[in-house]
Amino acid sequence: MTEITRRNLLGMIGTVAGSTAMYHAMTSMGYAAPSDYSGPIKLDGDPKGAKVLILGAGLAGLTAAYEMRAAGYNVEVLEYREKAGGRCWTLRSGDSYTELGGATQNVDFAEGNYINPGPWRIPFNHHALLDYCRRLKVPMEPFVQINYNSYLHRTDAFGGKPQRLRDIKTDYRGHISELLAKAVDQGKLDEAVTAEDREVLIESLRSFGVLNNQNEYVKSLETSEYRGFEKQPGGGVGAAPVASDLLDPQEVLQSRLWAYMATHETIDHQAPMFQPVGGMDQIAVGFEREVGDLITYNAKVVALKQDENGVTVTWEDTAGGGQQTSTADYCVCTIPFSILSQIDHNLSGGLANAISSMPYNGSTKWGLEFKRRFWEQDDQIFGGISYTDLAIGQISYPSTGYFSDGPGVLLGGYTWRGPNSYKFNAMQPEERLEWALKMGEKIHPQYREEFKTGVSVVWHKVPWVLGCSGIWENRDNYEDAIKIDNRVVCAGEHLSYLPAWQEGAILSSLDAISRLHDKIING
Amino acid sequence: MTEITRRNLLGMIGTVAGSTAMYHAMTSMGYAAPSDYSGPIKLDGDPKGAKVLILGAGLAGLTAAYEMRAAGYNVEVLEYREKAGGRCWTLRSGDSYTELGGATQNVDFAEGNYINPGPWRIPFNHHALLDYCRRLKVPMEPFVQINYNSYLHRTDAFGGKPQRLRDIKTDYRGHISELLAKAVDQGKLDEAVTAEDREVLIESLRSFGVLNNQNEYVKSLETSEYRGFEKQPGGGVGAAPVASDLLDPQEVLQSRLWAYMATHETIDHQAPMFQPVGGMDQIAVGFEREVGDLITYNAKVVALKQDENGVTVTWEDTAGGGQQTSTADYCVCTIPFSILSQIDHNLSGGLANAISSMPYNGSTKWGLEFKRRFWEQDDQIFGGISYTDLAIGQISYPSTGYFSDGPGVLLGGYTWRGPNSYKFNAMQPEERLEWALKMGEKIHPQYREEFKTGVSVVWHKVPWVLGCSGIWENRDNYEDAIKIDNRVVCAGEHLSYLPAWQEGAILSSLDAISRLHDKIING
Repeated sequence: MTEITRRNLLGMIGTVAGSTAMYHAMTSMGYAAPSDYSGPIKLDGDPKGAKVLILGAGLAGLTAAYEMRAAGYNVEVLEYREKAGGRCWTLRSGDSYTELGGATQNVDFAEGNYINPGPWRIPFNHHALLDYCRRLKVPMEPFVQINYNSYLHRTDAFGGKPQRLRDIKTDYRGHISELLAKAVDQGKLDEAVTAEDREVLIESLRSFGVLNNQNEYVKSLETSEYRGFEKQPGGGVGAAPVASDLLDPQEVLQSRLWAYMATHETIDHQAPMFQPVGGMDQIAVGFEREVGDLITYNAKVVALKQDENGVTVTWEDTAGGGQQTSTADYCVCTIPFSILSQIDHNLSGGLANAISSMPYNGSTKWGLEFKRRFWEQDDQIFGGISYTDLAIGQISYPSTGYFSDGPGVLLGGYTWRGPNSYKFNAMQPEERLEWALKMGEKIHPQYREEFKTGVSVVWHKVPWVLGCSGIWENRDNYEDAIKIDNRVVCAGEHLSYLPAWQEGAILSSLDAISRLHDKIING
Repeated sequence: MTEITRRNLLGMIGTVAGSTAMYHAMTSMGYAAPSDYSGPIKLDGDPKGAKVLILGAGLAGLTAAYEMRAAGYNVEVLEYREKAGGRCWTLRSGDSYTELGGATQNVDFAEGNYINPGPWRIPFNHHALLDYCRRLKVPMEPFVQINYNSYLHRTDAFGGKPQRLRDIKTDYRGHISELLAKAVDQGKLDEAVTAEDREVLIESLRSFGVLNNQNEYVKSLETSEYRGFEKQPGGGVGAAPVASDLLDPQEVLQSRLWAYMATHETIDHQAPMFQPVGGMDQIAVGFEREVGDLITYNAKVVALKQDENGVTVTWEDTAGGGQQTSTADYCVCTIPFSILSQIDHNLSGGLANAISSMPYNGSTKWGLEFKRRFWEQDDQIFGGISYTDLAIGQISYPSTGYFSDGPGVLLGGYTWRGPNSYKFNAMQPEERLEWALKMGEKIHPQYREEFKTGVSVVWHKVPWVLGCSGIWENRDNYEDAIKIDNRVVCAGEHLSYLPAWQEGAILSSLDAISRLHDKIING
């Protein structure tokens, strides 16, 4: 007699009820918990030629198209842009981009250089996205998130001089470890720490904080092993290393530069992260290889109507083909609510409320090309991010083409919500560029001398999304927004708990099509 | 009137006295301090056809050959092996390796898979090595050193169950931050921390340790953002995340798993690190493209003699050519002291003492090939290192070929000094392999099921070096060892303050040839 283990039970559910049921069972049993994705979805049962119209060829729409065709549906996709991907977007030489208001930027980077105005890094645990990349043969390379040699900068700290993350991190850690070790040693924490733990706690702090035997964090060759030497160990004559001075612990504290360390420690930024080789849009290109034949490009949806017989979508062929109509039995609508709210639709009340009330996040990103990779050659920064309290927020160095000669492209700024994300909305591209240079040169004085060309994207001005991601101030409307409304279901990053992430778009899409399919097959 | 800045002064020295002088001036002024390397060396002055014999085509010998030929010397290199690189060595399919004692291993990895038995990662600040890679067009890719999803394992901790580095790191940090924040808040550190600093210290600890407003580190969605969720945020229905349980803080402390966190924090292991695309030996291959024509392979040096007229080296052509003799005006000897001490030489007393008294480090490394990348597919570990207190010490996952199907090669163990580095010396390859599997399966139960083939290198048994790096218990003999002895100068990692690193070998070589050249040109 075999014990019914959780795995056995899942096998039985899979055999009896098909993979969709198993997928849901796994999720509800917590088996798929670490990723909320446990491998390719399988939509069992014959849809008997039902037609599905998918609105939008971003990652949610592409996922729906890929899986629903595989399940036997008749699939048509309408996409506003001239190519697939949506916010999964890469700008490179030859690209032209016109923002709301009419300003056009022509990208003039060197061959091979690019910037991702939208998503630009993939956490290791975004398993659904990474699994699609694997299946679509989109090669991955590491994205360097944390670089100990990058800079932390605040105008009001250290006289405005950028500090190396390494120094702040090591000295802060040393300082707090010394404080705690001494307090424990002096018996000040006898109530909080058992006698059994005191010794091992102090021992651990010596390791963690690089303290000496007197529990002090001091200038020494040992602390320099962590914070860097004044003179590095070398070879031959005069090669002995020289210890480096510590930063003043009070200055480290008061600088507040420690605040920048936390980002790297959240699970969606922990090492290792990934990026597609050649630009984020290679994911869209991978999907296009599979479902490109289903997509009608340059199709601007102007109306979405459903009744007891089906769904009718009116759209305009922006390439000059005039007004068109598409009909289907069902619809997966991945149009961002910021856009959908401006489209004539007859979706029901709860969903319509959610659509019309969702604010969209602002964000600005710059891609700046310089004549040479001075950040590598002069500053020894290979990938990673420098942070600043200036409005550009951060400067990120390319995680590809290390050590190469010739021009390189920086992410010259990335604002995220708050006032800084609005600051650049009203500006023209040239003015935004000037601001990025003006701020960036506080961290890298080489900026002006080495600058070649640049491009920036203000997400509130991107015509096909009007923002960078949906915002849930609370989740009051969430259940209404994800519900299947008769023949229509909505999907996208905005209908997930991972807003702004491509993983959220895919997981939302998988959930939506799995429910829609279930309804179609089982009624 | 121009102020004489440091840079101007260096320019003047460069113009007047040549680049060698400038290189030394830069070093002595601390200008080159961060790297102890400030760009390509230039050996100015005409050596007038002087001949230099270089013994050993490892990185020290290759660097000497490359630079001395460029400087106009007549260069001959003798190398024991059938190829260049020395410990800069990669084993891949088709390779055969016979260790001391006669055991031969034939490497049977799948196409493209490899293991580096010697150096396997390059710190970002090993500027000399990285600069040679750039000049030799050896492409680099990131080596993932720290992976928050890798395992930490001790037989006596957590019932022998491996823990994720993320959990140990986050919970340890949370626990000590809570202890310190509460102590400060309760006024217990009023002597050590000024009133001005107390508030900002507590604020920083809330950020650093992920504490709540009561300065507690507790189970919450917020701490789960750092330590991972019980159920990750998803999309659509039932997508809300679920917080994860914390580890017991006392168990974390007593586990001593915190001890494994320090490695990643030393400057020579801080992110980002690099590796050559395709295997470490691509550096040797890059040098061979430039100076391969100067190298005589299969040349086993048996005697090194010098007198007032020159240097005479007797060597055996191990490919069957019998005993041979090479003569030169000068000699750069990069033969490891472990081998040189067994060669008939007439070097002077101080140097001879250093040669005969240097112990060499032991180390064992395994390359294990498995049918599939179960560490990625089952454990979501992409690159990085798991540590264990078992004798194998660590398991490192390949930093290349991520997400690929088919067989992958792990570094199945890497011992370093201490008893564990001797444990495997007496074993035959099959027995060593069995130990690696037996220990590794404690961390990855998939080992036996998935194992395909393996190879191991015990460095004390490598015929041409008999150890993995020279050891300086103290530096009493160091000055004697690096001194030019009439016509002979020694170089290599063992004559640097960066022993066991390729950077040490190169810096030692640059220093040695620069002094030798100076002596030849200026007497």
